[in-house]
Amino acid sequence: MGGDHAPEMVVAGAEIALKRLPHLKFLMFGDEARLKPLLAKYPALEAVSEVRHASQEVSMEDKPSVALRQRRDSSMRLAINAVKEGDAQGVVSAGNTGALMAMAKFVLKTVRGIDRPAIATYMPTQRGETVMLDLGANIECDENNLVQFALMGEVFTRILFGLEKPSVGLLNVGIEELKGNESVKKAAAILRDIDLPIRFEGFVEGDDLAKGTVDVIVTDGFTGNVALKTAEGTARLLVHFLRETFKSSFFAKLGYLLARRSLQRFRDRMDPRRYNGAMLLGLNGIAVKSHGGTDALGFSNAIGVCHDLIVNKLNDSIKNELAAFEQAMSGMENAETEVAVPVVQAD
Amino acid sequence: MGGDHAPEMVVAGAEIALKRLPHLKFLMFGDEARLKPLLAKYPALEAVSEVRHASQEVSMEDKPSVALRQRRDSSMRLAINAVKEGDAQGVVSAGNTGALMAMAKFVLKTVRGIDRPAIATYMPTQRGETVMLDLGANIECDENNLVQFALMGEVFTRILFGLEKPSVGLLNVGIEELKGNESVKKAAAILRDIDLPIRFEGFVEGDDLAKGTVDVIVTDGFTGNVALKTAEGTARLLVHFLRETFKSSFFAKLGYLLARRSLQRFRDRMDPRRYNGAMLLGLNGIAVKSHGGTDALGFSNAIGVCHDLIVNKLNDSIKNELAAFEQAMSGMENAETEVAVPVVQAD
Repeated sequence: MGGDHAPEMVVAGAEIALKRLPHLKFLMFGDEARLKPLLAKYPALEAVSEVRHASQEVSMEDKPSVALRQRRDSSMRLAINAVKEGDAQGVVSAGNTGALMAMAKFVLKTVRGIDRPAIATYMPTQRGETVMLDLGANIECDENNLVQFALMGEVFTRILFGLEKPSVGLLNVGIEELKGNESVKKAAAILRDIDLPIRFEGFVEGDDLAKGTVDVIVTDGFTGNVALKTAEGTARLLVHFLRETFKSSFFAKLGYLLARRSLQRFRDRMDPRRYNGAMLLGLNGIAVKSHGGTDALGFSNAIGVCHDLIVNKLNDSIKNELAAFEQAMSGMENAETEVAVPVVQAD
Repeated sequence: MGGDHAPEMVVAGAEIALKRLPHLKFLMFGDEARLKPLLAKYPALEAVSEVRHASQEVSMEDKPSVALRQRRDSSMRLAINAVKEGDAQGVVSAGNTGALMAMAKFVLKTVRGIDRPAIATYMPTQRGETVMLDLGANIECDENNLVQFALMGEVFTRILFGLEKPSVGLLNVGIEELKGNESVKKAAAILRDIDLPIRFEGFVEGDDLAKGTVDVIVTDGFTGNVALKTAEGTARLLVHFLRETFKSSFFAKLGYLLARRSLQRFRDRMDPRRYNGAMLLGLNGIAVKSHGGTDALGFSNAIGVCHDLIVNKLNDSIKNELAAFEQAMSGMENAETEVAVPVVQAD
């Protein structure tokens, strides 16, 4: 029931996803009276779907705390509960992000070793695609949060893009000496020294996002949220300028007509629907957030992301990574103690 | 001597600026042996310029602290000293930003009432142009820093664009309840309650930068630096995609040729040289930072920004604004005390 065009968009999105991934099965949570007639339009989808009635909805205006306490019979909450109970292997929602995060964290709990979950998504770059996290779940992050984001983001990227060894960068600013706050500096030190097969490339800056300098960009939720929205806004601004350009003269209009098919591919390449599906990482369960304003095609992509993460056992990989990380960290602590001795003696 | 193409670019930039602003006079700091022959190529410029020899240069790799201690006879330092001594009314440099900030702060000192200077620039938006600050001078900011940035940014924007009452927004994230760190929340409370004729519009998000929702966007130096570079990177990405698009087929190439003149205007509109000239706000003196990689045209725009700020007495306006702010703040504190009384009595 979440998103601007639900539930029609959600059902139509599931239909598209089913055509691509015919082994999918759906639990649809929401107003039975609205969902059943909708599903009846798609017999193939109807055959693999089970409708479960929810008496409530989470609105886009509900505060997370309110949603958590007062929307216990909402479509969002019941869908998350289904993941917890093992009825579903993952949940996809186009609803209120803050509420989804709060409910998912409350119901599914964070993976052992992860203090806070993070939101991750991927964006187009000059070299392909780059994953960025956190996008707003955590306003203030310490070095441990950032290191955990790096580990989770690396696993997520490996699975999503089938990369063997994605490169990881920490988002920072470019002015020497002023470089970075304490969390960023400390996180970089840990990631540099740690004995893990993670390809840490050090600091990256805002423009490395679009360059695709690294496969994974790690940052706090405040900066990540601003960077993501700045990139989206700038892309829209250029498309707006471009549209005005092609309307500005007779020759420009004619030029547009001739280049139209190529320009359509340009638009397709930037199509936000292609990049729809932000992941809530670090929970005991797969939860994917679709843009609220997306359409059926965009929603089907979010379902596709959810599917890939389930099939590739994202959470098992994250748990393995964390176990290796803990081992490496205890190794580092021992190493530090050993190194400290001669320094003290030299004094 | 600063920037990728100095000193040729700087001298050629001054020549362009002089054509636009014939009343300008220049003090040129740097290697006399290189500057004098260059100036000889531009007799009109030579007639209004005085070369002052500097035996050192600040390199792009110099750390600010090193530049401060060991580059006391650099072109950058001598140029800043000239502002301090009243020989020049403003300084423009394409050199190392961190060094420029450190030297300018050390030599010129901050205006009374300003704890930390900030870097501000302006960017193209759907509605015209928007000023953003801080862009990297201050990695961590408290609410007082942000409020001071708002006051300085408002004055800067009023002068730069001749706006009577520019609107001001605080950059924040969009997820309700998680909204913002403490500094941002407290700064918003102060700006909302303060009795000043400042048009504070509350929180804005990353995409409001390109939308031009407000005239001034206030943020800490970490977020501002990332946002600025993300916007620049995204703009370059789209231009890159567009270039590929127009090469992708015969019809696309033909379309490009027809629309070329309009597309040139599109490029002009986005031209970073138009937006060259970041201001170091809050110092007892006008200091403008040009992009290091700019050309003569870009550098002439930075000189133009410097000129406008001098002519319009930026620093006097900032001082007046601060005096009014201090008065308003003491008013607020009194008001709070008065309000507190009945609450205590009611208890």
